[in-house]
This record gives sequence, structure tokens and C-alpha cells, in this order.
Amino acid sequence: MREIDNIKIGHNLLQNLQILKPYIASKSVVIVTDATIAQLYLQQLKSTMEFYNIEVVILPVGESNKNWHSVEIILQHLLSHGHDRHSTIISLGGGIIGDLTGFAASIYMRGINWIQIPTTLMAQVDSAIGGKTGCNFLEVKNLIGTFYLPKTTIIDLVTLHTLPEREYRAGLAEVIKYGMALDEEFFNWIESNRALIKDRDINVLEHMVSRCCEIKLAIVKDDMYDRGQRQILNFGHTFGHALESATGFTGYLHGEAVALGMLLACRLAVKKQLLAPQILDRLSKLLVYLGLPTSIQADITADVLYSYMAKDKKNQAGTLNLILPCALGQVKIVKHFNAEFLEGILQNYV
Amino acid sequence: MREIDNIKIGHNLLQNLQILKPYIASKSVVIVTDATIAQLYLQQLKSTMEFYNIEVVILPVGESNKNWHSVEIILQHLLSHGHDRHSTIISLGGGIIGDLTGFAASIYMRGINWIQIPTTLMAQVDSAIGGKTGCNFLEVKNLIGTFYLPKTTIIDLVTLHTLPEREYRAGLAEVIKYGMALDEEFFNWIESNRALIKDRDINVLEHMVSRCCEIKLAIVKDDMYDRGQRQILNFGHTFGHALESATGFTGYLHGEAVALGMLLACRLAVKKQLLAPQILDRLSKLLVYLGLPTSIQADITADVLYSYMAKDKKNQAGTLNLILPCALGQVKIVKHFNAEFLEGILQNYV
Repeated sequence: MREIDNIKIGHNLLQNLQILKPYIASKSVVIVTDATIAQLYLQQLKSTMEFYNIEVVILPVGESNKNWHSVEIILQHLLSHGHDRHSTIISLGGGIIGDLTGFAASIYMRGINWIQIPTTLMAQVDSAIGGKTGCNFLEVKNLIGTFYLPKTTIIDLVTLHTLPEREYRAGLAEVIKYGMALDEEFFNWIESNRALIKDRDINVLEHMVSRCCEIKLAIVKDDMYDRGQRQILNFGHTFGHALESATGFTGYLHGEAVALGMLLACRLAVKKQLLAPQILDRLSKLLVYLGLPTSIQADITADVLYSYMAKDKKNQAGTLNLILPCALGQVKIVKHFNAEFLEGILQNYV
Repeated sequence: MREIDNIKIGHNLLQNLQILKPYIASKSVVIVTDATIAQLYLQQLKSTMEFYNIEVVILPVGESNKNWHSVEIILQHLLSHGHDRHSTIISLGGGIIGDLTGFAASIYMRGINWIQIPTTLMAQVDSAIGGKTGCNFLEVKNLIGTFYLPKTTIIDLVTLHTLPEREYRAGLAEVIKYGMALDEEFFNWIESNRALIKDRDINVLEHMVSRCCEIKLAIVKDDMYDRGQRQILNFGHTFGHALESATGFTGYLHGEAVALGMLLACRLAVKKQLLAPQILDRLSKLLVYLGLPTSIQADITADVLYSYMAKDKKNQAGTLNLILPCALGQVKIVKHFNAEFLEGILQNYV
């Protein structure tokens, strides 16, 4: 098992009571999960925790349920079962379950103990790291939420073996993002180990997930509240979010949209002579090898995409900011981006 | 003007742009207030800030409106007017306006800039200090909320002169609480200056409000998240909240309930021989002089009161904790309080 800050990464951790115990002060524990994960791992976790009173909240799955109503279901459960601010809540599932549970945990009685057990690659390398919680609201993605840290995050790599292929690949987009945006050596490692990564080799998974957590934590540590450097982690995301929005959050998994977003950002950077075309080429080949999309759905127009980009949360006072690559493992924040130039690029590539 | 941490206390501060300016990064500013305060001070604040684009949200007044719906009104305004995470929101009003606005500010895009301008004594000495935000939810007082600090808190003592007498007195209950629970010297000062306090003498107000802020900040600094020492500030509040709940939040102003709560806590402490009866006597006389209630409404029974106390948020795993005075300016947290003993006391005094 590896420990990075308060994150534990290893195999069969769900069976290990000693890892959970120090973080639970109460006799009753609430586990929040969804039906799919419940079927796969709930019984195992309940057996491990047999000496606690376990209550379970099963939330409906999918982005369309990442809303205030789901947060309310958790809050209502906590209240009706008499939980106080010393109670413990565990999220067991992907990014949506983690974000919803973390948000509820952060506002119920102004904050209760939260243990996070991410079960998807996307959550293990990205959404579960760094304390962002929240839900969609008034039809805007993650419009409301908090910065709130779990007592501990437990990453059991065994859960990756039951992850559907498409979801696993989507998670790999964020893995590649860390290499592209922040760590040349890690990008090279991903390229060299691409076959083992595809096969979900147990040792390769451990290094891959651990390194992503390390890279993200190093950034988050200096910018918890997302005011500066942390924005680098949004490389590929301004385009990605626009793609997700343009398809009503049904066309792409988040990671797939990020893969396309990185590609668009790289094309833009090459066009602006910020980035050598060889890097774009390497990214493109890696995405293809790992089964991630490299061309945009035919029914999305440049105009629509641009209009969604203009609405992005990272913008400031109406001007568009973009995170663009300038070398392998290096990006820069380009502020006040020229709208016409961007529209031109989109017209060419969408 | 006095400055305590990021709190500014003085006269006519609402007319002073230089005080606000350093905390506003945006051109547009949203002011959240209620109809009463809007009539009294909104025009003044708007003139001071004439070079900004000012938007105003007027919320309905009263505890029954301290709910999620009101938070939603603020969130909806922020979204529909295109505010991003660099926008600034100002709360202008009493504790309810501050708590609702602070909560909305803390969760909108995971936190935007918030300037707090408390206009009631209760807010200036208590609710606006220390970063607690929130609203009632599922019919429970302050069930959800966050710990979130405003960029600055501006206390214009001039606003106290338009405060209705009953509300001013209610605020004095919290002032007395600081003396009783934490500062013997301050209690003596309140006693000596009771006539000037009653008359809202301008210099006495400045010392009184400043000292309360200092005392509260000293406690909060070491226990922001209310896990230990901060509970001392709840002296009188477990009884007080029960009284408010038992009357459906219509029988007492919060401060009136706290005054009665302190009296009940003192009686209990005298009965347990923790406190000299002379202190109870001094508290009682001071409350009478300042026009605060000292006897409980006839229709409240001990049983009902006890049942509400058992539900208090400060309890842990079903046992009742009370904050009891042991000398002037000193309290202690008594855990696992004997339920029968408490019920007996309530039977005698309610």
C-alpha cells in the first residue's frame, strides 16, 4: 500500500478494517453508493465493517441525477436517522457519488466526517483528489459546491477490474492530461507502458494512479481554492465542457470530452506556433492506441461549441481564458483569448 | 474607526468608499438585503458605490424565510446576471440576511467574494463574527450551512440607532453572554455602564461592540470548526434553542431566548453548587434593567422543553452536553448530563 498525504492506494483495501478504523469516531456509519457499485462492493465493505451500524443510501446513477435533489436525499437520511456532527459518511463509487456525498457532508450541520472510496479511474486520479464537491444546479454543471476534504481517501485498485472498458478509457484521458500538462517523464512512461495500461496490469495501475495523485496534490496544495495554478489542471476542460454541454451531457463521457479537448487545445497551440507539431502527433497516437475519440461528432457545429466555451466558469469578466500547451509537460494560461481566432480554429476542426 | 482582524467598527462607514474598495475586484456588485433595511440604508450605500454596477436582491424577512428557497433566490440571481467566481456580493442586514448571503456566496461556483455589513446588534456582536453561514432545512434550525469567511465585515454603529428597541435588547443578551461566560471585567463594565448602554450612547456602543468582537474572535481563532472551545459561546443556547423551538420560533427573539437560557443555566449551576447564588442574582438584575425577559411563557411545559433540548445539534451520540457557569466569566462544558436531574430542574423553573 502507498500513502500520499491522507490518500491510501493499494489492493484489497476494502477488506482491511484497520485502514478505515482510525477515521470513524461514531458507531453508526452511512454509506452512500449507487446500485451498480452496491452490487459489486457493498457486501464486501459491510462485512469488513460488521461491528458498526451500517446504513445505506442508494442514489440513482448518471449525470442527470447529479443535482440538488440527490443531495437532499442524503441530507434527509442523515436527519431522519438522527445523525449529529460526529457521524461518519462514506462515499463508495465514482465521481458523481463522491461529489454529491462530499457536498452533503460539507453542509450538513456545517460539516461531518467523510471518508471517500472512489471506485472509478476518473475518480481515483482526478475528481476524488483535491476537495472539490458539488452538484449541477439550475441546469449548470457543478454550479454549486464546496471545497471540503475527506478525512481519508481509500483507493482500492481492485475496483478497476470491474470498470467497463469505456469508463476505464475515459479515466485514462485524465491520466494523459497530467503527463501532457505537467510531467514530461510521466507522459513518456505512459507511452512506454501503453500496452500494460490497456491491460490494466496490477503493478502498472499502482504506479499510474499514485503518480497522478502526487501530481495533482502538488498543484492543489499551493492553490486549494482554485485561484491560480490549479487552473492548469483544467487543460482540455474548457473545450471538453463545451463538448459535453453541446451534447446535453449524453454524447461523451467526461474523459472522452477531455481527450478531444486536449487535442483541440494542442491544435490551437500548434496553429499559434506555441507547440511543436510532433507533440500533437504523439498525443493523437496515444489517444488512438488507448481507444479514446479523436474526432468530434458530426452534428456539433463550431458556433454552438464556441457559445458554450464563452460561458465557462473559469472565465473572468466576460473574457475567455484558455490553458494551452507550450511543450511536453508544460502549459500556460492564455488570458483574454481572441474570439475570432478561436472561432476560426473551431471552424477548421469541428 | 477600530480594526479587529478584518472587521472594521466605526461611525458612518457606509458613506466611506475607501473602506469597501480594496475588497471589490469586479465592476458589478450584488447587494442582498431586506425591505426594511433597504428603505433605511440601501440608497446611502448605493450612492457611496456609485461607480459600480449595483444589483439588488431583496429577500423576505423573518426566521420563516431563512430557508433553502431564499438561498436559491440569491443563486438564481447570480446565475441569471452572469456572475462568475470573481464577482462580489454584499450582505446588508441582520443575522438572517448575513447567514443566507454567506451560505449562497460560499457554494456558488464553490465560493465568491463576500462583504458583510451587519446592521443589527445581534449580528454585529455575534452572528456576523466567526464565519458560520447557513439556513434552516427540513424544518430544523441551521441544519445546513458552511464555515466561510467574508473578505471583510463592516460594522457601521450608526445603524444601531434605527434598530427597534426590542431587537436592540435582544442583542444585548449576547453582549451579556460574553461577560458571563468569558470575561468578568467586561461583565463589570456592562453593569457599570448599563444606563449608557440602554441609551445607545455612541462611545459606549463602540467599546461594547469592539470588545464582543475581540472576545468572540479569540475563541473562534483556535476552533474555527466548532469542535471544542467554540462551544463555550453556546452558553445559554441549548436552553435558548429549545425555547425558540417550543414556540415555533415566534414566541421569542433569539436573544430573548438566550437571556432566559443563561438564567436557566445559572439556576442549574447554583442547584448543582457549581455557582454562587450572588452571580445568578447579578445576572437576573441586569437582564431586568435592560428589559430582557426573566420568566418563561406560561404555556411552555418542562417536558416539551426537555424533548427539544435532547435534539440539540451540540449533543453527541445521544447524550446531552450543557455549558454551565462556574464563576463570573467562566463556564465549563458538562458532558453526559443526567436527564432526570435536568428534567427535575425544568419542572421547578418552567
